[in-house]
Amino acid sequence: MSLTAPASSTVTDASLRTRADRALPAGPYGHMAVRGRVPASFPQFYSRGEGARLWDADGAEYIDFMCAYGPMIAGYGNAVVDEAAQARQRDGDLLSGPTSHLVELAETLIDLMPHADWAMFAKNGTDATTTATVIARAATGRRTLLKARKAYHGANPWFTPVPAGVTAADRADIIEFDYNDLASLEAAAARASGDVAAIILTPFRHDGFVDQDAATPEFAQGARALADRVGAALILDEVRTTYRMDLRGAWESYGVRPDLTAMSKALANGYPLSAVVGSDALREGAGRIFVTGSFWMASSPMAAAMATLGVLQDGGFDAMTRAGRRLREGLQTQAEAHGFTMVQTGPVTMPFFRFENDEDMSIVNRFTDAAVRRGVLLHPWHNMFVSAAHTDDDIADALARTDEAFAELRSTS
Amino acid sequence: MSLTAPASSTVTDASLRTRADRALPAGPYGHMAVRGRVPASFPQFYSRGEGARLWDADGAEYIDFMCAYGPMIAGYGNAVVDEAAQARQRDGDLLSGPTSHLVELAETLIDLMPHADWAMFAKNGTDATTTATVIARAATGRRTLLKARKAYHGANPWFTPVPAGVTAADRADIIEFDYNDLASLEAAAARASGDVAAIILTPFRHDGFVDQDAATPEFAQGARALADRVGAALILDEVRTTYRMDLRGAWESYGVRPDLTAMSKALANGYPLSAVVGSDALREGAGRIFVTGSFWMASSPMAAAMATLGVLQDGGFDAMTRAGRRLREGLQTQAEAHGFTMVQTGPVTMPFFRFENDEDMSIVNRFTDAAVRRGVLLHPWHNMFVSAAHTDDDIADALARTDEAFAELRSTS
Repeated sequence: MSLTAPASSTVTDASLRTRADRALPAGPYGHMAVRGRVPASFPQFYSRGEGARLWDADGAEYIDFMCAYGPMIAGYGNAVVDEAAQARQRDGDLLSGPTSHLVELAETLIDLMPHADWAMFAKNGTDATTTATVIARAATGRRTLLKARKAYHGANPWFTPVPAGVTAADRADIIEFDYNDLASLEAAAARASGDVAAIILTPFRHDGFVDQDAATPEFAQGARALADRVGAALILDEVRTTYRMDLRGAWESYGVRPDLTAMSKALANGYPLSAVVGSDALREGAGRIFVTGSFWMASSPMAAAMATLGVLQDGGFDAMTRAGRRLREGLQTQAEAHGFTMVQTGPVTMPFFRFENDEDMSIVNRFTDAAVRRGVLLHPWHNMFVSAAHTDDDIADALARTDEAFAELRSTS
Repeated sequence: MSLTAPASSTVTDASLRTRADRALPAGPYGHMAVRGRVPASFPQFYSRGEGARLWDADGAEYIDFMCAYGPMIAGYGNAVVDEAAQARQRDGDLLSGPTSHLVELAETLIDLMPHADWAMFAKNGTDATTTATVIARAATGRRTLLKARKAYHGANPWFTPVPAGVTAADRADIIEFDYNDLASLEAAAARASGDVAAIILTPFRHDGFVDQDAATPEFAQGARALADRVGAALILDEVRTTYRMDLRGAWESYGVRPDLTAMSKALANGYPLSAVVGSDALREGAGRIFVTGSFWMASSPMAAAMATLGVLQDGGFDAMTRAGRRLREGLQTQAEAHGFTMVQTGPVTMPFFRFENDEDMSIVNRFTDAAVRRGVLLHPWHNMFVSAAHTDDDIADALARTDEAFAELRSTS
């Protein structure tokens, strides 16, 4: 149907929200739905990004700690990545078959990740987690997936945290256990009575609203041993943690290597790309399934992915880690100085905080509101992200503003 | 694991195939798997595209009739589309929230398509078909999907044509019927005994290897009436036909409007984007489901989508149709002149041909092999695509070469 023209030609965050309520089913959706879920001061619509800075639709500038919810690991408009992508766009991003970049990027990941013998590429993180489970089922000839409770694995009907439109059959072959609880995982495997196709785990539990739960080495190693014992594939869902814990794979320091890794988000610094990398034991199954997508062979995101890894290996990973550590230490010191107890969990590159004695979230909402009004984009209940573009000056600038936010919080408490 | 360095630094189609066999599970996958499925002369790896022309990894030039399997409706490197996309990339493609382009593109599609009251965007065609079915289930509170046999609706476990890794539960709530057979569709609905959430149909049946099956007006109208009668949503899967039959919706000339349309491929001339557009009756359900993707709010593909529609409305649709008609007529005339009976089906913008008396496909394989060796990329069993960039000269050039291919075919028959 035809919409009447917008009442005003002035494009503001507020006017876009009104138009979005009509032109979308119920405003922006998924993780972009901010209405009623974050303080009212949070912008919904943006216009520009550069380095670690964002501008909203009203022109207000922010030091951004969301990195587009993860992808922008080398920063907005990173020159090295964008030039690699644009060179491909000049020659043709999407053609009637793959370019050499498909092979080169697969070889790059195989060289990088000790467990990887092959790679496949898609667009969404959900594509990667779904494809990994289908590969595991094809390879094992089994059905059952073991997954941890409240540990997001994508927006398909198997895993989505919201039941609307999901049928019982969609989840008929999934058994849940408690993250970091090896006895619970063993019990889930026992319930599957020999039918476990895969155990799927994130490197740490990073769902919203609760402390981020780092896997203990014993749990990671126990999951690996269990998968081996029952002949199941161990799938590591690194969609969100890609390149933010260990470039070689998140559990490499534990000595735990998965059979399949799902990657996305930061893989190509915002260019749309996801990957499944796997070991030779899963190769035959992976070669037998049917997956495809109209844009999966596009060369520009693959060129961007190789440039992104280069940036991270060339000092970017260390810069990101330094920025995250300085932010965490600074916030912790400020909170204490202002009389609040801030609890920070998760890797420093993926900051998450809450306050003690804040069951109704009033402190964290007021703090993040005060920070956003001062141009620092923090999140009250979702993990945040830092990037290689967060300079010492960006962090110092952000901390100067959060110190003011804490002062406001104290004065109104 | 570490790969040894490639034996040669010369990147050729042949060397890339060898490397791909190791670095991917079993070489290129999905619709990009050409090995053993098309004549050996077909290139696998490409390097460059411009207008209606492609160059393979060995530097050989082709007049391309695949359009990257559909997306490139305005041609490779279309200046209008690419400038719109690149302007956004300079300002920031993916940010920590949507840009105005989300709203503007939704409004554009709502204005364009008579049944559309709202729109949502994703990356893959499969995202769009899956999301449409989840919306229908959420809106109706029912489970069962009615789909036509051998009518592809995407690469998720519900619909994929290959059973590897798919469980019985994945398809527990799907009932199949025969395309263009209203009695079969009615019988399927009766079997669902009041539980039909949706009927999903492509505008014509465009699976490979068989004549393309145009929906009769009676079938389309009957499906619409049945959906209304049983309270189910009618989903039109326009992923492949987007903008290639009727810009307003493929069945508009039949007077048949779906409740939900899934769009992708040509939506943004190769920039990764898909959409679900729907009517107000489905708005509440669409607003309640959870779908999301890390790259779904990227602004560059949305800007490209608006530019693509502009190109098509500004003469591009007519140019594409003219190119397709001239190709079809030219091939038909040539086939007759050389003593072959070519059967062409499907819209002229999505050419499909076979030969009579060719059960083993030897004629079509030899013909497309001869054409590809002369620099014309045709396909022996998949529908092809033409674009607004196929000029009269491109078509005349292609036909001059196919005439030679027919002559070779005749001389060796």
